[in-house]
Amino acid sequence: MSEEVKQESVSLYPVSAPATLKEEKVCIFGTGDLGRSLGQRLLQSGYRLVYGSRRPHSCGPIPSGAQVQSHEIAAQSASLVFVCVHREHYDFLGTLAPQLRGKVLVDVSNNLKKNMYPEANAEYLQRLVPGAHVVKAFNTLSAWALQNGPSDANRQVYLCGNSPEAKQAVAEIATKLGFTVLDRGSLCAARELEDFPLQLFPEWRMPMRLTIGLTAFFFFYLLIRDVIYTYVDQKKDNSFRIMVSLANKVFPIVSLILLALCYLPGVIAGFLQLYRGTKYKRFPDWLDRWMLCRKQLGLIALALASLHVLYTLIIPIRYYVRFRLAQHTISQIKENKTSPFDTTMAWRTDSYYSIGILGFGLYLLLGISSLPSVSNALSWREFSFIQSKLGYLTLLFCTFHTYLYGWDKFLRISSYKWYTPPGYMLCLVVPTLVLVLKLLLILPCVDKSLTRIRQGWEKTDPENDGKKSLLT
Amino acid sequence: MSEEVKQESVSLYPVSAPATLKEEKVCIFGTGDLGRSLGQRLLQSGYRLVYGSRRPHSCGPIPSGAQVQSHEIAAQSASLVFVCVHREHYDFLGTLAPQLRGKVLVDVSNNLKKNMYPEANAEYLQRLVPGAHVVKAFNTLSAWALQNGPSDANRQVYLCGNSPEAKQAVAEIATKLGFTVLDRGSLCAARELEDFPLQLFPEWRMPMRLTIGLTAFFFFYLLIRDVIYTYVDQKKDNSFRIMVSLANKVFPIVSLILLALCYLPGVIAGFLQLYRGTKYKRFPDWLDRWMLCRKQLGLIALALASLHVLYTLIIPIRYYVRFRLAQHTISQIKENKTSPFDTTMAWRTDSYYSIGILGFGLYLLLGISSLPSVSNALSWREFSFIQSKLGYLTLLFCTFHTYLYGWDKFLRISSYKWYTPPGYMLCLVVPTLVLVLKLLLILPCVDKSLTRIRQGWEKTDPENDGKKSLLT
Amino acid sequence: MSEEVKQESVSLYPVSAPATLKEEKVCIFGTGDLGRSLGQRLLQSGYRLVYGSRRPHSCGPIPSGAQVQSHEIAAQSASLVFVCVHREHYDFLGTLAPQLRGKVLVDVSNNLKKNMYPEANAEYLQRLVPGAHVVKAFNTLSAWALQNGPSDANRQVYLCGNSPEAKQAVAEIATKLGFTVLDRGSLCAARELEDFPLQLFPEWRMPMRLTIGLTAFFFFYLLIRDVIYTYVDQKKDNSFRIMVSLANKVFPIVSLILLALCYLPGVIAGFLQLYRGTKYKRFPDWLDRWMLCRKQLGLIALALASLHVLYTLIIPIRYYVRFRLAQHTISQIKENKTSPFDTTMAWRTDSYYSIGILGFGLYLLLGISSLPSVSNALSWREFSFIQSKLGYLTLLFCTFHTYLYGWDKFLRISSYKWYTPPGYMLCLVVPTLVLVLKLLLILPCVDKSLTRIRQGWEKTDPENDGKKSLLT
Repeated sequence: MSEEVKQESVSLYPVSAPATLKEEKVCIFGTGDLGRSLGQRLLQSGYRLVYGSRRPHSCGPIPSGAQVQSHEIAAQSASLVFVCVHREHYDFLGTLAPQLRGKVLVDVSNNLKKNMYPEANAEYLQRLVPGAHVVKAFNTLSAWALQNGPSDANRQVYLCGNSPEAKQAVAEIATKLGFTVLDRGSLCAARELEDFPLQLFPEWRMPMRLTIGLTAFFFFYLLIRDVIYTYVDQKKDNSFRIMVSLANKVFPIVSLILLALCYLPGVIAGFLQLYRGTKYKRFPDWLDRWMLCRKQLGLIALALASLHVLYTLIIPIRYYVRFRLAQHTISQIKENKTSPFDTTMAWRTDSYYSIGILGFGLYLLLGISSLPSVSNALSWREFSFIQSKLGYLTLLFCTFHTYLYGWDKFLRISSYKWYTPPGYMLCLVVPTLVLVLKLLLILPCVDKSLTRIRQGWEKTDPENDGKKSLLT
Repeated sequence: MSEEVKQESVSLYPVSAPATLKEEKVCIFGTGDLGRSLGQRLLQSGYRLVYGSRRPHSCGPIPSGAQVQSHEIAAQSASLVFVCVHREHYDFLGTLAPQLRGKVLVDVSNNLKKNMYPEANAEYLQRLVPGAHVVKAFNTLSAWALQNGPSDANRQVYLCGNSPEAKQAVAEIATKLGFTVLDRGSLCAARELEDFPLQLFPEWRMPMRLTIGLTAFFFFYLLIRDVIYTYVDQKKDNSFRIMVSLANKVFPIVSLILLALCYLPGVIAGFLQLYRGTKYKRFPDWLDRWMLCRKQLGLIALALASLHVLYTLIIPIRYYVRFRLAQHTISQIKENKTSPFDTTMAWRTDSYYSIGILGFGLYLLLGISSLPSVSNALSWREFSFIQSKLGYLTLLFCTFHTYLYGWDKFLRISSYKWYTPPGYMLCLVVPTLVLVLKLLLILPCVDKSLTRIRQGWEKTDPENDGKKSLLT
Repeated sequence: MSEEVKQESVSLYPVSAPATLKEEKVCIFGTGDLGRSLGQRLLQSGYRLVYGSRRPHSCGPIPSGAQVQSHEIAAQSASLVFVCVHREHYDFLGTLAPQLRGKVLVDVSNNLKKNMYPEANAEYLQRLVPGAHVVKAFNTLSAWALQNGPSDANRQVYLCGNSPEAKQAVAEIATKLGFTVLDRGSLCAARELEDFPLQLFPEWRMPMRLTIGLTAFFFFYLLIRDVIYTYVDQKKDNSFRIMVSLANKVFPIVSLILLALCYLPGVIAGFLQLYRGTKYKRFPDWLDRWMLCRKQLGLIALALASLHVLYTLIIPIRYYVRFRLAQHTISQIKENKTSPFDTTMAWRTDSYYSIGILGFGLYLLLGISSLPSVSNALSWREFSFIQSKLGYLTLLFCTFHTYLYGWDKFLRISSYKWYTPPGYMLCLVVPTLVLVLKLLLILPCVDKSLTRIRQGWEKTDPENDGKKSLLT
């Protein structure tokens, strides 16, 4: 390979090449907070810096080491310009179009809320200065990170733009400032990047609302049954049960329901595909949205199950429990009779605990495989094995655990205080339904039809009556 | 920098440049499930789409918005072609070689099982159409992800190919569809990518089989000792012990053995290197394979240890335990004698629990540092500090915990029911062996030799008798 | 697009292009351990290999399949040269400058300690051979990984260099050897890369020292109060309490203090900014360092809190506890009086446990969101919501948990053995302080000033007396 060819190829990277001189000059338009924070960091990383300002002589304090010039002069002295002004003031950039021709313009702006403008800020900028290479970048970082460098949730600079060279130049700077660069494609991804910093767990909202609703309902339901009923019926104040006993009923109940709700849309989708005989029709919107928040439902269910485990494990150190156990022993002695050992009882309670522990272990496994770094390392076959096969097994274990807890209580009339069923019965409805429906879906004949539909081969022909008949 | 140079450099990316026009046209060969799923997604992402089909007028339903043409015409209208046909039907592509010259061909195919063909599908395709730029991509995604965009285990598009420009063009599309791109190098990586979706935890198989084998063995061993022996000897049915007591013996026993097996190959390798006096000879195959599944062994051991912790913590809420404790108190009162407080007993049991908890804490630390995102953030010096130093400390703690559990039981003849030793004794064999061997290896004189061998400097000379003599 | 343009653009990648021939020849200077390990791996991956050696005929064993030549000849036969010699021996490379002109030189060297030389090894190499394209790479891998391919903490090859083509060529090789490539920018990042393998948890040192110091102090403090005092006062040996009871006091105490110390610098910084009226002045060094290790403080606090949970949960299976409970029951019977059920006591202990569990749950949530892969997936708004809002909530819960534990003990004179306050009182000082200061900061008037300062707009004007007056 000849050295000449090499040199030529390098000259084709006119923007990034100067980075090697360690003294590359960059320009920042705007001396506000953002411009100053970013400027400070650029200076610390060894860049020479010039600010462009409308009033270069009265623009307020700027980081020491930087120059201030008018926009025109500043733009001409650097090949890369950070635009640190609000979108409302972009107009003046249109008049600078000749000076900005061929420059890389980095749009770092964000809006105060989503959909404020019909087009993304970066796209608007590109339209104003069509001769420049606009790159959207750095906007997903906090001001703190722009000033002080990367920290936990601020390691990654997402960028997008239409010119690979321009993106390369910005990536070079971002890397030098210590960030990791993630290329999100062409400029039409700008809107997505501009919305990113505004989001606050959007996909967690529906599951959280559901959780709060269910928790509140079961709390009051059980408050009435366990505390108020006792007070009315026996004039006994056991309100202290709210803190642990009640919590330890509400959490597992809501957890099991959420876990079941996590698998319900899957079986509904299965039956819908069977009924329609095709997988190419879109699901109804509510089902789509439901399926998209299954992961969140599952993780909240896991969190509540963990609380249930902790609440259960502190039972024996509770004052109330110790008091009652001692009373029981004392009364046995006083009455001089001992209850014999009940093997059935031992089997039942031990099974109940054991199944619960195994269910929780599987639950944890599902949670761990949801960690981004773990799920990225799995092939989708492995991931769906865990989330589907092990998921249903978890649901089965947890449901069985609850049935064992109930045992024969549903036969006793005393369980139905004020004609209400105990909480655990209510919470068994959805999981049982999901398990029964799933059982139907994995019957060999139904499973075969569904598999064929999901492989998409069979159902391109219009006459698909054969499959529908399976459901009648 | 002049604008002209800039333009020229852009013109050298003929494939990726049109991406900026938002209306790039891509072609898909094949109107089967895969082609339709991918097509739907491409159309949603703003691409224009043309299908190539053998029977353009009777090819079944295609997503609305796409055209269907004959292969020849379709190929000519786009610079990038997705090949969504089965490998068995690739032959026709050879006849299209002239039309495909210079095009980017994206091979998305998978096989039904490994090693079905002597060469990778993508390499075969490249051989059929030598003038095209074949890129292997998208095959690691599920059909669901191809149709609906990225989700948990389907975020990453692996690609490989010989032409950087072609890869760049495919990467651009993948990014636009919302995926993250991972470049796996040249086309000879295609086989690896094609095998990826077929795998189902290949590296977990051996450790899982071992775990199941050990668990089954110890379950039956302890069943005989704890349940059947009692029944035969005392005619007492304590079969209920299976659910918790037995499980809580089997899990910690298997866990400790697996943890020890995790460190055994390391010490074996050390002795082998000492004996051979070089680190450049390959280890025997069984040792290599063993070393490669150490992580899996450790994680299974951790899972079992966690179950052991949960099973231990529910002990005091078990019916059986509460019954026995009450009986004990009642019998003390009836016989009117109280057993005095035994300080040694208090020391011993408390130490036993405390060491166990600390061991489990270290165990968890090892587990957390095995998470991909955590281990990626560590330097290898840090990683090996945790996995080696802390790992042996964990093994030491857990082994000591088991010795404290045993205490002086090994002296009592009643422990050897039917002449069998208790389970905890059997499980101490391997960990003790590993710890003793490791102790030998860190003796200063041995350690020095081994360090020199591992640094590779010393042992290039043929006369390495000095080190060998250390072992005699 | 014409095929010619395509070909031309490919010819501009003279270095990476030959990679597609599968038979690319690379050169390694140096036949020491590093050179041999790397060479073995390169040969296995299908590269042809030539070693450059000063004594090509007596350089010791080299991997079979490789040639050995003099440096001059070896350099000329490959376009890419791995420099596997120690920095002290780099001098000879200067004399080879003509042969190395235009070649890619990969510097894989590390130093034994930081700051041994005024400039990075790679920069020194570039200075010696200015005509070559130096790339720093592979130095962050262990020798084991270089020989055997990627494993846990050795998946990523960091590289930096001034020539994009040279980096591309090295990246191609690294990918082929199975590693993931992370580009760290230009050659001035070389020092950072060279320091990376030397580090052993640098940011954990201060928090670990603090933890050890606090743990030691509280251990001896409580040893005196709980064990020695009892021995002196009542001649009773309860030294067995060291293993569990003492540990279960020391761990939560240190954990709570560390959690508070994690949030203290934040409130100090807030007050400092309020006092100064600007966010652009740098914080004092000690505060900066403190803020940088908050994550580590929090994670250690979480680890200790987890130990506290485990130590608490084993309480009821301890011999000592069972003995005491039985004694209590027996004494109640003998004295023939039963203590009545105390509802206040039930409320208090249940609240104490419940708040503790919820606090620990939040603690875990903070820990999980600190995992690199999780925090990377969060926007900084989400991350700061969790770490700040939920963080203070955690601190509030844990502090309240401790106050409930203390209850009215601080009123009893017997709590102050030898005039020392109980441990839990000491540990409440810092958290209470942090919570009170935070409360002041979120008072509407103070919060408004602080927000304005942090947005940076308001304080560019020199007269900022208005804000200062808020603090007087």
